[in-house]
Amino acid sequence: MIKAYAATEAGGSLTAFEYDAKPVGPGDVEIAVESCGICHSDLSMIDNEWGLTGYPIVPGHEIVGRVAKAGAGVAHLKEGDRVGLGWCSSSCLHCQPCMSGDHNMCVTVEQTIVGRHGGFADRVVCGAEWAVAIPDGVDAAKAGPLFCGGVTVFNPIVQLNVRPTDRVGVVGVGGLGHLAIKFLSKWGCEVTAFTSSGAKTDEARAMGAHHVVDSRDGDAVAGLAGRLDVIISTVNVPLQWDAYFAALGPRGRLHTVGAVLEPIPTAAFSLIMGQKSLSGSPLGSPAVVADMLEFCARHEIAPTTEHFPMSKVNDALAHLRDGKARYRVVLDADF
Amino acid sequence: MIKAYAATEAGGSLTAFEYDAKPVGPGDVEIAVESCGICHSDLSMIDNEWGLTGYPIVPGHEIVGRVAKAGAGVAHLKEGDRVGLGWCSSSCLHCQPCMSGDHNMCVTVEQTIVGRHGGFADRVVCGAEWAVAIPDGVDAAKAGPLFCGGVTVFNPIVQLNVRPTDRVGVVGVGGLGHLAIKFLSKWGCEVTAFTSSGAKTDEARAMGAHHVVDSRDGDAVAGLAGRLDVIISTVNVPLQWDAYFAALGPRGRLHTVGAVLEPIPTAAFSLIMGQKSLSGSPLGSPAVVADMLEFCARHEIAPTTEHFPMSKVNDALAHLRDGKARYRVVLDADF
Repeated sequence: MIKAYAATEAGGSLTAFEYDAKPVGPGDVEIAVESCGICHSDLSMIDNEWGLTGYPIVPGHEIVGRVAKAGAGVAHLKEGDRVGLGWCSSSCLHCQPCMSGDHNMCVTVEQTIVGRHGGFADRVVCGAEWAVAIPDGVDAAKAGPLFCGGVTVFNPIVQLNVRPTDRVGVVGVGGLGHLAIKFLSKWGCEVTAFTSSGAKTDEARAMGAHHVVDSRDGDAVAGLAGRLDVIISTVNVPLQWDAYFAALGPRGRLHTVGAVLEPIPTAAFSLIMGQKSLSGSPLGSPAVVADMLEFCARHEIAPTTEHFPMSKVNDALAHLRDGKARYRVVLDADF
Repeated sequence: MIKAYAATEAGGSLTAFEYDAKPVGPGDVEIAVESCGICHSDLSMIDNEWGLTGYPIVPGHEIVGRVAKAGAGVAHLKEGDRVGLGWCSSSCLHCQPCMSGDHNMCVTVEQTIVGRHGGFADRVVCGAEWAVAIPDGVDAAKAGPLFCGGVTVFNPIVQLNVRPTDRVGVVGVGGLGHLAIKFLSKWGCEVTAFTSSGAKTDEARAMGAHHVVDSRDGDAVAGLAGRLDVIISTVNVPLQWDAYFAALGPRGRLHTVGAVLEPIPTAAFSLIMGQKSLSGSPLGSPAVVADMLEFCARHEIAPTTEHFPMSKVNDALAHLRDGKARYRVVLDADF
């Protein structure tokens, strides 16, 4: 039996829950969970915001642990290896996206907490391709949030081919944004953080931001007039989009990883004149995750975390719901 | 005196007009005009649609001719060289975009028919950097439209790094779109043309389109479901944007060179899930124009043109206004 915490109805508290472990199939691994970060999308799934949730649901998709069993055919991982697992838990390995290295866009990608049980548990199973080895030099106790929040903002840096000479804006200094600032600072960029929370200004600077701007102040944003090469938005609320487009210079790129529901009204003329673009991206592929981990080890980058024992999961969820997380909450398994 | 045709009021007919030729300054060339294409933006400027027009206005920015005089310091062109001139007529050569090869995004770029007189004339002056030599193998008589319409659609192919293995959609089979089809076909791509005119289906195929789809039929567009890598829209009317985004596969890019006035409502979720983007671009730099001309010479690509003597400029403009152009109108100088 796998021991876990599950919600049994939308918005409900989590309660102890057990379910039968399936045999570990060919190509799969079972991970003995050591810790699991909490992501906003865990709340979205608990609350069935996206209509994807089946109950009971065991949330948790920022998982760190050790390989407990490796299925038939798994040659690159062995029992005891420390690995991490994020939003995706299995890819077909054969579709065109998989064969192109885009396992995160696999046409039949399995998602860790959609139609299956996640990491608020003592064990979890996944395709071995998504269990990414954590290198020496990465603090495993804090690493969980890298596997969802981290790679969500590392991936655009890779996909957009951000250069160390670029001036990059990061909108939102939260679970995702604080990691974007840390990555971009070590990437060599000039980093401008946009936050609606004045209280985070000093912390953003300490993380590596060179400038901090009030994200709600359209004049201040537009006042950057052509200065930024890339803006990565990590928030899911509408922005003063015109001001952010105006802050971009020639060839500037506004990229969102925040799934804001309201359409982004984009002026063709603004795109055309400055050869600008608006784009988005999902979590990265396993290869990008591995590159991120190596980059973190080299530059001693770690998420800024707060820790709760997993048995206090409801306290931890309440802390996140209340907007108090600074900057990512991690549950330490205590079954 | 320079002989020309000018409009003296918004929407007015063009009449014969003469103005004093300025001395040809250092770094400039004077071109003896042989022919000049007509672009929709000539109509927009004649009608003062953008509020940029000063009257009298001499339109014309798809100019082909021979260098009549080369100013001081012009070493790469000499009298008698055949050159073309498009929307931009001078760049500072020193700002960051100029120094990066983006002379088309020069912060003080001069535009051929904005605040100065264009190519419906026997002579025109420009910065030598924008007078691009026409190589042997390009039919000069038909080349005018390459310098605005042509490079407007060639530029995104270069900027987006379109690959010969890509499946590319072209929205609109007109002055721009017909050239996009010809370019992309020779670029090696699978080309899908979208047109609202059933009458153009066979012609689009003859130009190199592999498939032709009704651009107004949202179901037909969406039915392409994930098939296209790139879509280049050349029209300036709102599309069923969601259907076009849905037609894009992973990493798909929707690019507009049509300055549609209504904002393009873009769903962040759609961008994020498939790592898609929406972008735009202006005309290309002189270096891109030169590459385009060489590509045209190698592949025997020429605009499909209709010709009027320049003295019949009003007939030619009426032909374009009536939507009858197949596919680009060229005025042959007959002063």
